[in-house]
Amino acid sequence: MSISSQYYPDEPSAPTVNTTVIPGPVSQKAIADLGKVFDSRTVYFVADYEKSLGNYISDVDGNVYLDLYAQIASIALGYNNPALIKAAQSPEMIRALVERPALGNFPGKDFESLLSKILKVAPPGQDKVWSGLSGADANELAFKAAFMYYQQKKRGYSTEFTPEEEYSCMQNQSPGSPQLAVLSFERAFHGRLFATASVTRSKPIHKIDLPSFNWPKAEYPSYKYPLSKYEKENKQEDDRCLAIVENLIKTWEFPVAALIIEPVQSEGGDNHGSSYFFQGLRDITLQNDVVMIVDEVQTGVGATGKLWAHEHFNLSPAPDLVTFSKKFQSAGYWFHDDKFIPNKTYRQFNTWCGDPARMIIAGAIAEEIVKHDLVEHTAKVGDYIYNGLAKLADKYPKDIQNLRGKATFIAFDLESQNDRDNFLYQLKLNGVNCGGCAENSVRLRPTLTFENKHADIFLAAVDNVLSAKRQ
Amino acid sequence: MSISSQYYPDEPSAPTVNTTVIPGPVSQKAIADLGKVFDSRTVYFVADYEKSLGNYISDVDGNVYLDLYAQIASIALGYNNPALIKAAQSPEMIRALVERPALGNFPGKDFESLLSKILKVAPPGQDKVWSGLSGADANELAFKAAFMYYQQKKRGYSTEFTPEEEYSCMQNQSPGSPQLAVLSFERAFHGRLFATASVTRSKPIHKIDLPSFNWPKAEYPSYKYPLSKYEKENKQEDDRCLAIVENLIKTWEFPVAALIIEPVQSEGGDNHGSSYFFQGLRDITLQNDVVMIVDEVQTGVGATGKLWAHEHFNLSPAPDLVTFSKKFQSAGYWFHDDKFIPNKTYRQFNTWCGDPARMIIAGAIAEEIVKHDLVEHTAKVGDYIYNGLAKLADKYPKDIQNLRGKATFIAFDLESQNDRDNFLYQLKLNGVNCGGCAENSVRLRPTLTFENKHADIFLAAVDNVLSAKRQ
Repeated sequence: MSISSQYYPDEPSAPTVNTTVIPGPVSQKAIADLGKVFDSRTVYFVADYEKSLGNYISDVDGNVYLDLYAQIASIALGYNNPALIKAAQSPEMIRALVERPALGNFPGKDFESLLSKILKVAPPGQDKVWSGLSGADANELAFKAAFMYYQQKKRGYSTEFTPEEEYSCMQNQSPGSPQLAVLSFERAFHGRLFATASVTRSKPIHKIDLPSFNWPKAEYPSYKYPLSKYEKENKQEDDRCLAIVENLIKTWEFPVAALIIEPVQSEGGDNHGSSYFFQGLRDITLQNDVVMIVDEVQTGVGATGKLWAHEHFNLSPAPDLVTFSKKFQSAGYWFHDDKFIPNKTYRQFNTWCGDPARMIIAGAIAEEIVKHDLVEHTAKVGDYIYNGLAKLADKYPKDIQNLRGKATFIAFDLESQNDRDNFLYQLKLNGVNCGGCAENSVRLRPTLTFENKHADIFLAAVDNVLSAKRQ
Repeated sequence: MSISSQYYPDEPSAPTVNTTVIPGPVSQKAIADLGKVFDSRTVYFVADYEKSLGNYISDVDGNVYLDLYAQIASIALGYNNPALIKAAQSPEMIRALVERPALGNFPGKDFESLLSKILKVAPPGQDKVWSGLSGADANELAFKAAFMYYQQKKRGYSTEFTPEEEYSCMQNQSPGSPQLAVLSFERAFHGRLFATASVTRSKPIHKIDLPSFNWPKAEYPSYKYPLSKYEKENKQEDDRCLAIVENLIKTWEFPVAALIIEPVQSEGGDNHGSSYFFQGLRDITLQNDVVMIVDEVQTGVGATGKLWAHEHFNLSPAPDLVTFSKKFQSAGYWFHDDKFIPNKTYRQFNTWCGDPARMIIAGAIAEEIVKHDLVEHTAKVGDYIYNGLAKLADKYPKDIQNLRGKATFIAFDLESQNDRDNFLYQLKLNGVNCGGCAENSVRLRPTLTFENKHADIFLAAVDNVLSAKRQ
């Protein structure tokens, strides 16, 4: 019995679109009403989550779409998943919602077992966690851990702060507020708070008008596809990019304390890096005592055919800090070395230190993924989608360019941004909700319960849209 | 019938402490276990939320404390509140937890009515909201709105970004990444992310080793108490501090785009500002076109005897942006002027744009506060506590200094940090959980369902601890 029929016996067998435009008239009215109190200009349609099920999302006009965007890559199992509904109705959840604890001061008696449940799906080598609220929050918390570690190492772990450090930090001046950098990569996306916006390098719209830190930007490799054909050229590209990283670390005007990188640059265009490149970075960070932060906010939780995408690289030793959010619903960073616990209390701290309600959902997601082998399942379905798209790429070579991906974490490029935007709109009219990334890419981010039968519907819709375009 | 007996007919009539040390042995073991996977060094005790009720929190050793700290000022109504339990069990909540939407792209059909429910308790003059996840997040989102507004005003709201702006922001350089400041105040606390840590000025422990922005710090008035006796001196202090603010705005090496201030500086020591001071700031911000951000993260939601503490000041016009979190459980900023909606979409944006599960709790809290007149109730109970403490201050003038407060948002100072820490520990052994702020202050942050009968228990415990100390 297939995974989606186990979870969703009543899942629709096909999408239905009744309106001639999207958003339809009911959505349009709802968007206008919402716009009076909230910025609703970016709303694609107003959803009816009561009627959404499994891999299908419904809107208030009665349209039902096969969903390959899944709340910007944030739904692991599908809509109205019975195991998650059970978790949401549990007494632990009611308490987490009503008695939201300050987890650093007054954690509940369930907290340790909840964390242990979550840690069962931590990346290889990681056995501790610090919790946050979103991907950007997770990354900034990781930066804090990295900066504190970096300065403690210089100062001596058990050495007291000097009066000069204490005084100067209150003036936002060095040495207490040191000039230290986080290195990131061209086209990276790590969030939209101020430190995370400083390492985000994908689009001006995320950054313009925001004060930022003067931190270095390296190049993420740009490969030629298919990878098997261009092995030599791509290795040269890796070496070129590694040399840039090393040079920036050695020559930046102040110390580079940390490096942050996505295993696959997601918002920036689904750009893949090789194992060779990532192991090279691991070596450079070790040699230069730079903290290596792997941002698994979008790539984590199974979609690449590994639970955590950097498992594809067999990094040794494991990265220092690995951040997570999105499909895990909860957020934070994994780590393994106690040196990333600050020397004094209340340095890495805040009122809530995460949200136990979201951690309960994360625990339930983790349990379901293991129980149903959903990562392996996703690897197989990914191959099926990839092969289907490869055939369509032969048929429509201008519209499906640079096909790339691991498992269902697949992307391809159209000729222009306008082409891509039209393609996504036409897909919606054909009953498929899908997302874009970079300027002219399409990214697939289905749930882990997506199956070949759903892939067939998606591939038929792509074929339909592209053949209509050519007529 | 009293409010707590309506909500909590089975609330304990008094605290019980069975252990001779806190944390007790069972908590100690749980803290050690938790410490293997999470930084548990700051845990006071491990709570049993199943057994906590109303204004009483239980721990795993069977101790039951009257709680005047309430999860670092974050519990509005008390533990296991039946109205919140009902909200937590609602079908809307189940959906919000299981189908967490990307609210900017695919909001659910309930979202607009949920926001409208929340907006019913917005501060005077505010009728729009942008949602976030924590107090620090809310403040950084407000900074983004302020910076975008500030640059748009210079550029022209509908003027396109220049290629130079687009290019330079990707390098983290001006003019795309401009040098702009947020002015804050000595002893302020606004959060621990990077931009918020830059405006936080209460303690080195929050700031040390973190890179920060070179932003100006003004002085928050330091009044002489009682206020009625020192009117003239305190007005002079207001004028002195206002002049510093105006001077910093006019002379800082780059433009001050925004000012952020707490109506009562909370973490920094419960320092109060007068209406005169706040209206002066409102005038200065208007005259200099600086965005005025009022941080109501800790002061908001009723504890000062107004729903929002800055209502005490009758500010005219209303502040530009008002941030909230903590007792409201949901977070974000209120605003009223469309000029704070960025000229282009996806500038103020992120994956989740808040958490509808927490917004549902906020909506239920708002409804209960209005239904039971809990703000007025809190004002009365606050007077009762204040008068009781004033009597104890006469009895123990060295241990209850500078008594100050509005409603139940009350604080006083002990002679030293050591004295204060011992006092709080002894209070716990006497069955009262209470918190500190600044170096030597005690802050009361009970729920809005705290009553005179609870105050009597608290006051007796204070008397008991202080009389034992003097023996």
